[in-house]
Amino acid sequence: MERIKPRTLSGFMELLPDKQAQMERIMEILRRTYSLYGFAPLDTPIIEASEVLLAKGGGETEKQIYRFEKGDSDLSLRFDLTVPLAKYVAINYAQLAFPFRRYQIGKVYRGERAQRGRFREFYQADIDVIGDGELDIMNEAEIPAIIYRTFTTLGLTKFKIRVNNRKVLNGFFAMHGLFEKAAGIMRTIDKLDKIGEDKCRVLLLEDGIPELKTDEIMGFIGISGTSAEKLKALEKYEGKNETFDTGLSELRVVTGCLSEFGVPEENFEIDLTIARGLDYYTGTVYETTLTEHPEIGSVCSGGRYDNLAEYYTDKKLPGVGISIGLTRLFYVLEEQGMLSDEIITAPADALIIPMTEEISKAVETATLLRDFGIRTMLYSENKKFKAKMTYADRIGVPFVVFLGDDEISKGVVKVKDMKTGEQIEEKPDEAAMRIKSEIDKRSTGRVIKD
Amino acid sequence: MERIKPRTLSGFMELLPDKQAQMERIMEILRRTYSLYGFAPLDTPIIEASEVLLAKGGGETEKQIYRFEKGDSDLSLRFDLTVPLAKYVAINYAQLAFPFRRYQIGKVYRGERAQRGRFREFYQADIDVIGDGELDIMNEAEIPAIIYRTFTTLGLTKFKIRVNNRKVLNGFFAMHGLFEKAAGIMRTIDKLDKIGEDKCRVLLLEDGIPELKTDEIMGFIGISGTSAEKLKALEKYEGKNETFDTGLSELRVVTGCLSEFGVPEENFEIDLTIARGLDYYTGTVYETTLTEHPEIGSVCSGGRYDNLAEYYTDKKLPGVGISIGLTRLFYVLEEQGMLSDEIITAPADALIIPMTEEISKAVETATLLRDFGIRTMLYSENKKFKAKMTYADRIGVPFVVFLGDDEISKGVVKVKDMKTGEQIEEKPDEAAMRIKSEIDKRSTGRVIKD
Repeated sequence: MERIKPRTLSGFMELLPDKQAQMERIMEILRRTYSLYGFAPLDTPIIEASEVLLAKGGGETEKQIYRFEKGDSDLSLRFDLTVPLAKYVAINYAQLAFPFRRYQIGKVYRGERAQRGRFREFYQADIDVIGDGELDIMNEAEIPAIIYRTFTTLGLTKFKIRVNNRKVLNGFFAMHGLFEKAAGIMRTIDKLDKIGEDKCRVLLLEDGIPELKTDEIMGFIGISGTSAEKLKALEKYEGKNETFDTGLSELRVVTGCLSEFGVPEENFEIDLTIARGLDYYTGTVYETTLTEHPEIGSVCSGGRYDNLAEYYTDKKLPGVGISIGLTRLFYVLEEQGMLSDEIITAPADALIIPMTEEISKAVETATLLRDFGIRTMLYSENKKFKAKMTYADRIGVPFVVFLGDDEISKGVVKVKDMKTGEQIEEKPDEAAMRIKSEIDKRSTGRVIKD
Repeated sequence: MERIKPRTLSGFMELLPDKQAQMERIMEILRRTYSLYGFAPLDTPIIEASEVLLAKGGGETEKQIYRFEKGDSDLSLRFDLTVPLAKYVAINYAQLAFPFRRYQIGKVYRGERAQRGRFREFYQADIDVIGDGELDIMNEAEIPAIIYRTFTTLGLTKFKIRVNNRKVLNGFFAMHGLFEKAAGIMRTIDKLDKIGEDKCRVLLLEDGIPELKTDEIMGFIGISGTSAEKLKALEKYEGKNETFDTGLSELRVVTGCLSEFGVPEENFEIDLTIARGLDYYTGTVYETTLTEHPEIGSVCSGGRYDNLAEYYTDKKLPGVGISIGLTRLFYVLEEQGMLSDEIITAPADALIIPMTEEISKAVETATLLRDFGIRTMLYSENKKFKAKMTYADRIGVPFVVFLGDDEISKGVVKVKDMKTGEQIEEKPDEAAMRIKSEIDKRSTGRVIKD
């Protein structure tokens, strides 16, 4: 038979079972945490009509889109989860209750230039709160709590949620007669982390901002100190521009509820350099960085926007949302050695190895363990004992259960703890209870360590 | 602004939040149940190189494939989860321990003619056990246990796992000099359920099977009685053909362990008419039908095959697997009114409604409830009380927590059980404990009823 060399496309992540187990744990934690804040799971098609998906049109993204024809349909693969959300809310407006809170963890597609750590198929994990006409600032204030609980549940401690408000920036620019240039300035200062202060200054000057105003901008975004000190420093601009004043009062609300939301001060800061490149943000903007790995950039970002679905409906649908680029995050965590081996990544908690020809007792035991919620594999291959133990080692199973003539006649099983090497003979249901409680104990570990 | 009419492509399922909650519950049960049998989760790309995906080539499927070019790559969307598994195992052969047990729940794509209940994007939920060179019959014997636990955990009771063995059929055909025609005969008898006995007989005759032999075939697959009676009836063919004898002994093993595997006899039967259309099955084959809804056809099917990845590798990789067409199953369950409202489909367990301007106490309460694992939404929109309660009703939240000046000064919250209408004033942590235990109680319901 002619054979084809099997391969997975470059830019497409495909994990081995132990890594996949870690990825699944991360996804499970995201689902559970988002649910705790009242977000409903949503699933939308990966393929959409191109005219619908590209209603907004233009931009860098369009070139990267996987677009093709099938029959006489012009189709595209989704490149984010926001446009499908806008479509969904516009279609189902009458059936949804607002504020509508949804999370979606799904694959998106961008035909980026292939390079290490860049993915063409990747998971995004998004949450959004969509209001009907209006949306209270408290929804923006709650976002840091969600980020904090998500990251700490994953196991991270050394991270900082950095928050700014677009109205503060826009208002400040307007005060200095730079209203028209605001979008461009924000795109430039958004790059500050990457290009540094000097290059940022040069770009602003090149953009036609006078030197004096460039100094003012750099001074403003450079305001230092704690969040409280920054809020204090911003007071002196108050009363000069309505947008600024609104932004500052919103920033106060977002900062003011942290402790009630359970977010420690050290995991939060106001950062006036956060602008986010996308034009559609209008209020609070968020980035999250790992304090010991600033080179990774933001691992969870988002912001407030005023009009989710303007390309589909005349309903005004303001919202706030954040997104985690899950595939990239997983990739960098693995590269940094930050994926923890504290969680069980084996496909089973217990492997039953029958030592007799007749294996009905082994089957009975497997069924019993499963009834207790123990992930149980029954090893029935006709191999030498050594090969069976090699299998147990290779899958990394925590417990091996032996069942020979001896055990069967005594009505017991022999359980080997593969970590300690300890072997215990006990009644099947006692074994089940002990294994279950031991597995529960070993399952409390974190999937990420920092 | 010019607006585009938002729409979702036909043949693509997109659910409202309450239905999505039911779908998520089903997926969660599948993940958990498959895990109980030692299957590891796997995730593979939706896009593959066409030459890899279509290595087997030809067939009905090829016409339905979503295939397109991006740059100079010829790409296709996966149309099942078996080919990607074959590719994965061939690529990662050296790193995997065999038997390799994996489950995968993922979307696949087939450009079928659009019609009610037919989907172009749909979830398959597959499990497979792959051996290296050999694979013991016990792996085939375990499959009915997995199907049984899956369906009963979902809430179904009235279903039948129907099992046959291809070797029994092949051996029987060989005995009658029909070895060459076996594949064709099996494709015909596979249609028996749909087309009836008479039409089946006509097709066999048209296929060039002599009338006498057609009678023998129809008589053979028509053997009736309990599984034990059928096994007994098959004995009389023993000793005439080696393949038949192997098949019969395999069928005995598969039938023999049912009670140890916890499968009641009434949910199982040997059905000699089960052939499965696909040529690559070589041993046990499975179908699962809902006894009161035979019109739905099989909702979980599969079988034993001898060579998973022959198009990619010269390694012999026998396996056994089953698949659930999840999207179609969900669709027919909903159509039949079989999705149960016993489970909570609201996006939150509790909705906190602050009755004061200052809402820091409400935020604190929300954080407390979340710490208890209660899915909690904080309602902070500036609306009239009636609008707030309408929202609570629309999302179907089980508990509403009120916090007014009165409650705050007394250090209590007022909890309304939306089902009974009962209102209780209690300390926040007492409320949390009570809501949690009540929610846990209400979460034990089944997602499907039959």
